[in-house]
Amino acid sequence: MRAIGYMKSLPIEDRQSLEDIELPDPTATDLSPNDLLIEIAAVSVNPVDTKVRVRTEPDNGHKVLGWDASGTVKATGSDVTLFKPGDDVFYAGDIGRPGTNSELHIVDERIVGRKPSNLSHRDAAALPLTSITAWELLFDGMGLREGEGDGETLLIVGGAGGVGSILIQIAKALTGLTVVATASRDDTRDWCTKMGADHIISHRENLKAQLDALGLQPRYVASLTATDQHFDALIDLIQPRGTIALIDDPAELDALKLKTKALTLHFEIDVYSAHVQHAGHDRPAPSARPNLRACRPGEDHHHREFGRRNDQRPEPS
Amino acid sequence: MRAIGYMKSLPIEDRQSLEDIELPDPTATDLSPNDLLIEIAAVSVNPVDTKVRVRTEPDNGHKVLGWDASGTVKATGSDVTLFKPGDDVFYAGDIGRPGTNSELHIVDERIVGRKPSNLSHRDAAALPLTSITAWELLFDGMGLREGEGDGETLLIVGGAGGVGSILIQIAKALTGLTVVATASRDDTRDWCTKMGADHIISHRENLKAQLDALGLQPRYVASLTATDQHFDALIDLIQPRGTIALIDDPAELDALKLKTKALTLHFEIDVYSAHVQHAGHDRPAPSARPNLRACRPGEDHHHREFGRRNDQRPEPS
Repeated sequence: MRAIGYMKSLPIEDRQSLEDIELPDPTATDLSPNDLLIEIAAVSVNPVDTKVRVRTEPDNGHKVLGWDASGTVKATGSDVTLFKPGDDVFYAGDIGRPGTNSELHIVDERIVGRKPSNLSHRDAAALPLTSITAWELLFDGMGLREGEGDGETLLIVGGAGGVGSILIQIAKALTGLTVVATASRDDTRDWCTKMGADHIISHRENLKAQLDALGLQPRYVASLTATDQHFDALIDLIQPRGTIALIDDPAELDALKLKTKALTLHFEIDVYSAHVQHAGHDRPAPSARPNLRACRPGEDHHHREFGRRNDQRPEPS
Repeated sequence: MRAIGYMKSLPIEDRQSLEDIELPDPTATDLSPNDLLIEIAAVSVNPVDTKVRVRTEPDNGHKVLGWDASGTVKATGSDVTLFKPGDDVFYAGDIGRPGTNSELHIVDERIVGRKPSNLSHRDAAALPLTSITAWELLFDGMGLREGEGDGETLLIVGGAGGVGSILIQIAKALTGLTVVATASRDDTRDWCTKMGADHIISHRENLKAQLDALGLQPRYVASLTATDQHFDALIDLIQPRGTIALIDDPAELDALKLKTKALTLHFEIDVYSAHVQHAGHDRPAPSARPNLRACRPGEDHHHREFGRRNDQRPEPS
């Protein structure tokens, strides 16, 4: 089968930093009991692909990249109960296994969802990683529950990025939160408005002053980019007892700054594959993978709300 | 009236570090609209009293210490709706106002609760600050809701201290959590057992090894003492996506350590007085002071569960 990846971790300017690779087709005999063999129809590209390429040296001659995928179940492992051959599925993959940029791919059924019937494979492949991140950040990390948040404000720093775009929509569709998104260019401001944000402010100007002008003091802050740069300002503008969640890579982050306002800080990453699944592919506790609920067959109603074409999304400013 | 405090911040070895002070009686004309004038019947001593004495130089000749109090309403401000003269009340005070170690005391009605009828003033005065801290740590900081927590474990480091003693009881009475408390001496171990802890382990031995032996991996950790010393071990032993809450004063705390497990960190302190009330005594948003719910007249059923005599409590080890 054809795949896209690399033989050696190289700067992106190097022509061999990304290569077409020809690999043997995986077959049903390669499946662990909970695995699905997927015929991939579409993938999408995420920032994590860049990080994996830069940080991970292949250990068996090559590394296939890719995280998000949409496709069709071709074969199932002996213990699979959730899917059957022919089912259309979508999922974010697993850092511990080969990436999704290949014609065939093996994935554990427990991190797979049924593709919404009203989305093409191409549209569906754009959703999993950003949606899981936004969902877990809001409902697990920040502790919100669906239907809550009336009278409270969520500030999203970097509203026009992948996670921000989904987070605006989830927050508006499933909670009562007032959503303030930051953007600094006309097209990203327009995009955040289209996603449903109630207010747009600029992360290049004083955040607190702009919020004061709106008469809003956020209880929740999603810091999706440049947390390094904004951390002190976020602590200054947030309500006492508020929650800050971040997804990026600050060089340092002093937790003592949380104390004077009794704040909560949540670090959102997809830890399932790293910490749960590869402990012998044990079935995860519901608490360790709450988003599985949203991915179960017949429960794709949340995903249906958030479909859009990846190519409509501008770059975050 | 008589009061206990100091004229100058001095080492505790100095005989003038704590003094009896004679002050004019406050009267109804000294009350702000939401204030109560309280005839104090009992107070208790908290670690915060020491911190205030060491850190705060009196700005008007003297400083009255004290945080917790139980007493009887003697007069009410013009806008008071929750209490009337003769009501027995208990409360944790307000860092921005004189302390409770005085015969008469003024407090905002919105941080006052009705004294449980089955507790003496002496018993009631032992409860407010530790109970509010434990309550807010568990239900606000950690995001638990009453009745939740089945199948999950809460580790309490320093279970025999004031907050730990209340936290064990609240967690056992109002959630389904399995509670593991740490203690290192026979009397503190016995105390934690009496409070209702399911398991006791020693914080002087390897925490993770002891939890492994119990077959438990906490989703929640309350770090009530020596967070400096235990932080790395707590991150190692907690479940991915778990929550650590602390109440002490580590010299430093690196939030980047939360990332690999997508953890949440909550810093619990009583921020109401510092951040909410003294902004012109505005009525606090429910979100900023959720524990008010538990302190409203007629809703004292939680407090009733947790009464005990302060002098039965051993020093934390």
